[in-house]
Amino acid sequence: MDAAKAVPQKKVDAIIEAIHMAATSSGTHSFELIVVTDIEVRTQIFKAAGGQMQINDGSHLLVFAAWDNHTAKRIDEVVGLNIKPRGDLPMLQAYCDTLKVNYVPGNAAVNYAHAPRQAYITLGIVLVSATEQEVDSTPMEGIDPDAVDAILGLKQRGQRSVVLMLLNCRDESGDWLLALSKMRKSRETIVTQID
Amino acid sequence: MDAAKAVPQKKVDAIIEAIHMAATSSGTHSFELIVVTDIEVRTQIFKAAGGQMQINDGSHLLVFAAWDNHTAKRIDEVVGLNIKPRGDLPMLQAYCDTLKVNYVPGNAAVNYAHAPRQAYITLGIVLVSATEQEVDSTPMEGIDPDAVDAILGLKQRGQRSVVLMLLNCRDESGDWLLALSKMRKSRETIVTQID
Repeated sequence: MDAAKAVPQKKVDAIIEAIHMAATSSGTHSFELIVVTDIEVRTQIFKAAGGQMQINDGSHLLVFAAWDNHTAKRIDEVVGLNIKPRGDLPMLQAYCDTLKVNYVPGNAAVNYAHAPRQAYITLGIVLVSATEQEVDSTPMEGIDPDAVDAILGLKQRGQRSVVLMLLNCRDESGDWLLALSKMRKSRETIVTQID
Repeated sequence: MDAAKAVPQKKVDAIIEAIHMAATSSGTHSFELIVVTDIEVRTQIFKAAGGQMQINDGSHLLVFAAWDNHTAKRIDEVVGLNIKPRGDLPMLQAYCDTLKVNYVPGNAAVNYAHAPRQAYITLGIVLVSATEQEVDSTPMEGIDPDAVDAILGLKQRGQRSVVLMLLNCRDESGDWLLALSKMRKSRETIVTQID
C-alpha cells in the first residue's frame, strides 16, 4: 500500500462499474455508493471508524449506504426502470406487487436486515474486480454508523452507512500480511453434504 | 438450465472452494454451507421457500447458515486456527480480545445482523466463480428461515438459514431471462463523489 500514490481513475472506474452492475435482490440495488477522496471528510470518517489506521493509507474510500427502509416508491422506481428496456410485461407488475406485499408492510428493522446484505454481495464482487485491476481493496467494518451518517448527510437521504472499502495502489513490499500463511477453517468444518 | 443434467462434481468443488476461501470479517467465516442434492430434502426446502419453482431446476442447492450469535468460544476457535500457521503473535491475542469486547456482550440480534452479511460476500464471489466454471448460479431469498432450520436441524447447530443458491448446468437455450435487456439503475443515481 502506498498512500502517496493514488489509484488511477481508470481502475477506480472499472471497480465502480463492477459495483454498478452487481446483482442484487430483485434488481433493487438497495444501496448507494459514496466515493470519498476529500482528505477532510476522510479524516472525519477515520474518527467515526474507531481510528482504524488503514483508512489513511488509500486514495479512495468507498462508503456503502443502504436504504433505511423499503417503500412502495422505491420499489416502483425499480419497476419503472425495468419497463423501459424490457417492456411492461404483466409478470413484471405481478412481481412488483409481490415485492410490495413482502416488504412494505414489514417494519423498518426487518427491511434493514435485507438492504445492507445486498451491499455485501458487491463487496465480494469488488474483491475480485480490484484484484483483476491489481488494486488492493480492504473492506472495513467497525464504524459508528450514526456518526458516519451525520458526516455524509445520509439520514436526510433515507440511507444508513453499512460498511467501508478502501482502495490502494498495490505495494507488495509494504504489505506485512502478505508474508503470513493464509488461514481458513478446514473445508470439512464448514461444508455439510446431504446426498 | 437443464434439470436432467447434474453440474459436474469438479465444477461444484471449485465453487465450494471459492466459498471456503472467501474473505470474511476478521476471518471468522461466521457461516456454514449445506450442499443438498437429496431430492426429498430439496422438496421440503422448496415448500419452505414459498414454492419458488427454480429450486427444482438445478442439481445442487446450497444453503448458507449463519451463526445465531457470536460467542467467546467461536472467536477463540478462529484465533486458535490462526496460531497454527502464523504463530502466537501478541497482536493476534489483542485483536481477539477486541473482537470479544465488541461482539460477545452484544445481544444476539445485533450479532446476527453481522454474521449473515459475511455469507453475502461469498454470494458475490460465487456469482463470479460459477460464471468462470460456466455454471448458472441463482441466489434465492424469500425463504421461511424457521422452516428451513427445522428441515436441516440448524437450531441444534447454533445456526440460522440465511439464503439459498442453486447451481445448474448452463443451458442458454432454456434461459428466458438471457434474451431480456440488462437493467440497472444509472451509475449517476447510485454513485456520489466527494472530492
